[in-house]
Amino acid sequence: MGQNRIELVEVGPRDGFQNLKEYISMEDKLHYIDGLIGAGVKHIQITSFVSPKAIPQMKDARELAGHCAAMYPDVDLFSLVPNLYGAKAAWECGLKKTSYVISLSESHNEANINRTREQSLEELGRIREELPDLTILSDIATAFACPFEGIMMLDGLLELMGKIYGLGVREFVLCDTIGMAHPAQVREYVRAAMKEFPDCRFQVHIHDTRNMGIVNTLAAIECGVQGVQSTLGGLGGCPFAPGASGNTSTEDLVYMLNRMGYETGIEFERLLALAKEEHSAIPGAYSGHHINIGAQACGMNV
Amino acid sequence: MGQNRIELVEVGPRDGFQNLKEYISMEDKLHYIDGLIGAGVKHIQITSFVSPKAIPQMKDARELAGHCAAMYPDVDLFSLVPNLYGAKAAWECGLKKTSYVISLSESHNEANINRTREQSLEELGRIREELPDLTILSDIATAFACPFEGIMMLDGLLELMGKIYGLGVREFVLCDTIGMAHPAQVREYVRAAMKEFPDCRFQVHIHDTRNMGIVNTLAAIECGVQGVQSTLGGLGGCPFAPGASGNTSTEDLVYMLNRMGYETGIEFERLLALAKEEHSAIPGAYSGHHINIGAQACGMNV
Repeated sequence: MGQNRIELVEVGPRDGFQNLKEYISMEDKLHYIDGLIGAGVKHIQITSFVSPKAIPQMKDARELAGHCAAMYPDVDLFSLVPNLYGAKAAWECGLKKTSYVISLSESHNEANINRTREQSLEELGRIREELPDLTILSDIATAFACPFEGIMMLDGLLELMGKIYGLGVREFVLCDTIGMAHPAQVREYVRAAMKEFPDCRFQVHIHDTRNMGIVNTLAAIECGVQGVQSTLGGLGGCPFAPGASGNTSTEDLVYMLNRMGYETGIEFERLLALAKEEHSAIPGAYSGHHINIGAQACGMNV
Repeated sequence: MGQNRIELVEVGPRDGFQNLKEYISMEDKLHYIDGLIGAGVKHIQITSFVSPKAIPQMKDARELAGHCAAMYPDVDLFSLVPNLYGAKAAWECGLKKTSYVISLSESHNEANINRTREQSLEELGRIREELPDLTILSDIATAFACPFEGIMMLDGLLELMGKIYGLGVREFVLCDTIGMAHPAQVREYVRAAMKEFPDCRFQVHIHDTRNMGIVNTLAAIECGVQGVQSTLGGLGGCPFAPGASGNTSTEDLVYMLNRMGYETGIEFERLLALAKEEHSAIPGAYSGHHINIGAQACGMNV
């Protein structure tokens, strides 16, 4: 990949929507997905295949996924699954890639998904065995820091990644789940991971709890990760911090990267308009995050 | 200066307060200044000496400055002045350093302070002549971009700085007035300026209009600037963008820099508490900026 290429990976339709109390209709979800694709976004996590009782927002997953897979054959659409059952559903809907989350922190894994890390690894093994052609995007939650265990150690991260690699996974997402990482740590961990697993692809997913989403994401980009995850408007975020600003915002990233000369393939103004539309349409969702207005509002002709 | 030292320069009491409609009593202003110093902040722009009709918020400048100069002899307290008259007032109050603003953009200088750049330079010349021992901190507004003229050219920046240098000024603040800079531009301009004027000290003051305050400020720090300006809670900001998030937030910077191992000398938790207090006490001031909650709210024991 060239020095100035980066894949912007939009996870808003899953990570952003999943915690919203009010159900977003499938039509509305499709509207935003369509808008993202129209603005040039090429990688989208469109839904998750989970129990509708657990996460009612995602009850339309099958229909949504089937629809998108048919409508947008050239877009890299993927989902998130917690188990083999979800993975099979994703596969049946025509999705060829899915995220699967394991926390680096044992306590966080158990608190978050009620399973030990060992159980999570076993389930991943079953998915790999039954669906060998389904590409796994391995989300390592709390890769940098954990609300219970504090700063996570690098050797533990590499060790866990080694086990996942052993199951045939070749793509990792290092997640700053509570937004506590800082650029020096991001650089250290990303470089070490990329060096240890040179045949793997890497992304980061940085939460913005301490307003460091942009700076940490850029740190990772400059270390050579292939992709970065974010959400339109920064929707979503740290589950342990009510009112905290959420995810890194896709439009902020696109603004910066386009201005820096990166080829994102995304039209900033179209994306910003969509972000503002979403911001108005989903009241209460943005309690912590403020969508920064773009260059036009400052009257700048750039 | 060591590799991990950086001066955090708090400009909230001037840049943050000046545009507030509601008058903040001198006692309240002193309360925040005292709180900042208690948290370890060593460099504070405490007021500006301007016409009380133009900026009523700063009508208590003389009394405030006199009080602070007496109370905090070991703190680097400074002001902002628009002209010789203000500079004399600052000097009489015991302040030994003041900011003086010239915009790189001719149109912005005229729109902002109703003067040509040449007139601004002449006034600076008069200040230097009459008050040779008053240290001038030369704020270059729109150093990176201008709401009227767009991206500003580097050679123009160096040329203007050369004229100011010729008047005996040895300390510059490169200001991203509308928050439109990006890290690659910051690095390029800061490096070039530091190379062209190796006997000068440098700061940056980055507005957060596009959520890039932190990333641009870190870019400048890593290029070797001696200081960075910010405001508690990010109060203040782009005058052309109502509702835009404002200044780079001091507590966000301190969080990041302390975590990265820089010696800021500032206690993050005390600063955050003061930021939250200010946020609650000044309703309406924070329309654009969200104070991110700190590590404690996420239950992290770091």
